[in-house]
Amino acid sequence: MRIVKVPLGGRSYSILIGDHLMPRLGTECARLFPNTKCAIVSDSNVAPRYAGTAQKSLETAGFDPVLITVRAGEASKDLRVVQSCFNQLARHRLERRSFVVALGGGVVGDLAGFIAATYLRGIGFVQVPTTLLSQVDSSVGGKVGVNLKAGKNLVGAFYQPRLVLCDLSTLKTLTEREFRAGLAEVIKYGIIYDNRLFARLERQLEPLLHRDSEILATVVARCCAIKAAVVGQDETESGLRAILNFGHTIGHAIETVAGYGTYLHGEAIAIGQAAAARISHAQAGLSEASVERIVKWLESVGLPTSIKLSRARRKRLLAAMKLDKKVSAGQVRFVLAKRIGEAVPGQSAPADLIERSLEDMPIPSFQSRGGG
Amino acid sequence: MRIVKVPLGGRSYSILIGDHLMPRLGTECARLFPNTKCAIVSDSNVAPRYAGTAQKSLETAGFDPVLITVRAGEASKDLRVVQSCFNQLARHRLERRSFVVALGGGVVGDLAGFIAATYLRGIGFVQVPTTLLSQVDSSVGGKVGVNLKAGKNLVGAFYQPRLVLCDLSTLKTLTEREFRAGLAEVIKYGIIYDNRLFARLERQLEPLLHRDSEILATVVARCCAIKAAVVGQDETESGLRAILNFGHTIGHAIETVAGYGTYLHGEAIAIGQAAAARISHAQAGLSEASVERIVKWLESVGLPTSIKLSRARRKRLLAAMKLDKKVSAGQVRFVLAKRIGEAVPGQSAPADLIERSLEDMPIPSFQSRGGG
Repeated sequence: MRIVKVPLGGRSYSILIGDHLMPRLGTECARLFPNTKCAIVSDSNVAPRYAGTAQKSLETAGFDPVLITVRAGEASKDLRVVQSCFNQLARHRLERRSFVVALGGGVVGDLAGFIAATYLRGIGFVQVPTTLLSQVDSSVGGKVGVNLKAGKNLVGAFYQPRLVLCDLSTLKTLTEREFRAGLAEVIKYGIIYDNRLFARLERQLEPLLHRDSEILATVVARCCAIKAAVVGQDETESGLRAILNFGHTIGHAIETVAGYGTYLHGEAIAIGQAAAARISHAQAGLSEASVERIVKWLESVGLPTSIKLSRARRKRLLAAMKLDKKVSAGQVRFVLAKRIGEAVPGQSAPADLIERSLEDMPIPSFQSRGGG
Repeated sequence: MRIVKVPLGGRSYSILIGDHLMPRLGTECARLFPNTKCAIVSDSNVAPRYAGTAQKSLETAGFDPVLITVRAGEASKDLRVVQSCFNQLARHRLERRSFVVALGGGVVGDLAGFIAATYLRGIGFVQVPTTLLSQVDSSVGGKVGVNLKAGKNLVGAFYQPRLVLCDLSTLKTLTEREFRAGLAEVIKYGIIYDNRLFARLERQLEPLLHRDSEILATVVARCCAIKAAVVGQDETESGLRAILNFGHTIGHAIETVAGYGTYLHGEAIAIGQAAAARISHAQAGLSEASVERIVKWLESVGLPTSIKLSRARRKRLLAAMKLDKKVSAGQVRFVLAKRIGEAVPGQSAPADLIERSLEDMPIPSFQSRGGG
């Protein structure tokens, strides 16, 4: 088992990473929570497979868990679902010192985290992410929330879990599409922070796609360590943390415009990162060769790297970006890469450049722009 | 103008107290917020009277406020109302550095505060309380939230405002019933923390009931200072802060069982405090004379101090108390007074004593219990 610490003073916590960790859930929770009442929030895909193990582990450790199962999919990140979960927590008599376990992917983690953050003004929270995407990204760092019609994650909180338990064996049961979508968040850490990770992902793509245990453990731990380091420096995204949003401003807008569910989050983020790489070439000096490496890796994984939109949808996409949380004084802000391994937040880009980058049309390079 | 500081490190803020302060709202906000987009959340009683002044003041200072008016009354502390407010904030394009002004009583403050705490994971928040109850209590300290069917304030956050502006002239337009209900929270500070304030309130009851400006300014400032001192020592209620809940465990349960709207919050809290005083006599050594002073003061103000309930309602009331946030390990916890000016949290009481205290039936005193 590998352990990554997230350094946040009194709210520090550990990420446990390893095969077959789920049966340890109960004993790990027993170290943290004195109160026996708890809830497992899961979804209709994950619960049939893992809720039994999680529940049994908690019961064996002396807890009294209630299982709350929501419908799988982004549509569950909704205030009506939140309301229904609250009512179930009240019926099961959860108290201030009780806790909520999120058992599932990013949707379940975001939803359950928001519930834990706001029920009785905040109760304990444990993440048991069961997808690659949630293990390397959404379960760490404390961003929780739900969607509005106007956009993704517009409602939420910064609320840290007390423990993250990444059972790598859950990754073996993911569908091929889900697993590959998760890799979009993995490559992100290479692009924004770690060129050696990027090179390793290029080199070891084959064993990674075969979900080799050793490479999975290494990669998940490295991604979590990067996220922990970034979040430890800037918990509430006043600066550095924004680099974690590389590809996300565009990606979120694609999800909004395409309708939640058309693309998996990782797929939309793949398009967003390819577009952000192209914009980075024009605005931040990222070399053409680096753009090509990024796009090629995403394509090798089988992820989309461009999108054709009707004029009306293009307009809606630009409007959706303006509702993103990263907007400041009406200006959409992008994270751009200067080179592979280094990103800068807070960059602007003209609308026509964004549109061209989405469709992979030719765009001017940084140098030619600088000279013109 | 009096200024009370709430000492919370980087999240410290000031409470401004004085006559005719509303027109200063815009200039005070201009010191705090760089972003022009903002929202005023008010209700159908308060908005017609004060929203114009608040809006004009913000506009004159260069802001672009949207006015959101909810229906007056406790029923607006509901997640569906929250959802509708979120949609309006999104339509008005509020950003991370935007802010929400709560203009109204406790309901509006709790609702608007929860919205500010969770929209875009937290935006700026300003309290402009227009009732006595909200000026001395709910606007200070950062408790925000909404109700569930299962109970009051079961969903929420600790989220501090950046500024509280108490315009005392708004108290002149309160109905007699509302003003007197607010006095229930005023006497609370005397009981739990300040026997000199209690004596002053006994002595100066007449001018207070006539809403004399000078005594109002003194009393509001003293209550805010006590609350600031308590909250400054224990922001998230891990200990001391619980004393502010004197009378509230029972009071909230009365509101739940009677149906929101039957009693004003202050009226339910008056019954709760009278009952808590009687329980304090039996369990914590509060003298019979002190119980009488408390009950007499509440009655002089015209507030209820007991309640007759059918057997079924009594049962529901005890059940509602068990859902209170103050429950720990299944045990209802009360704040009790040892003497006027000193309270202790975390006390338990047998069910029959609670029932007798509510109906003002004879109860054993501390001494006789101690000896028996």
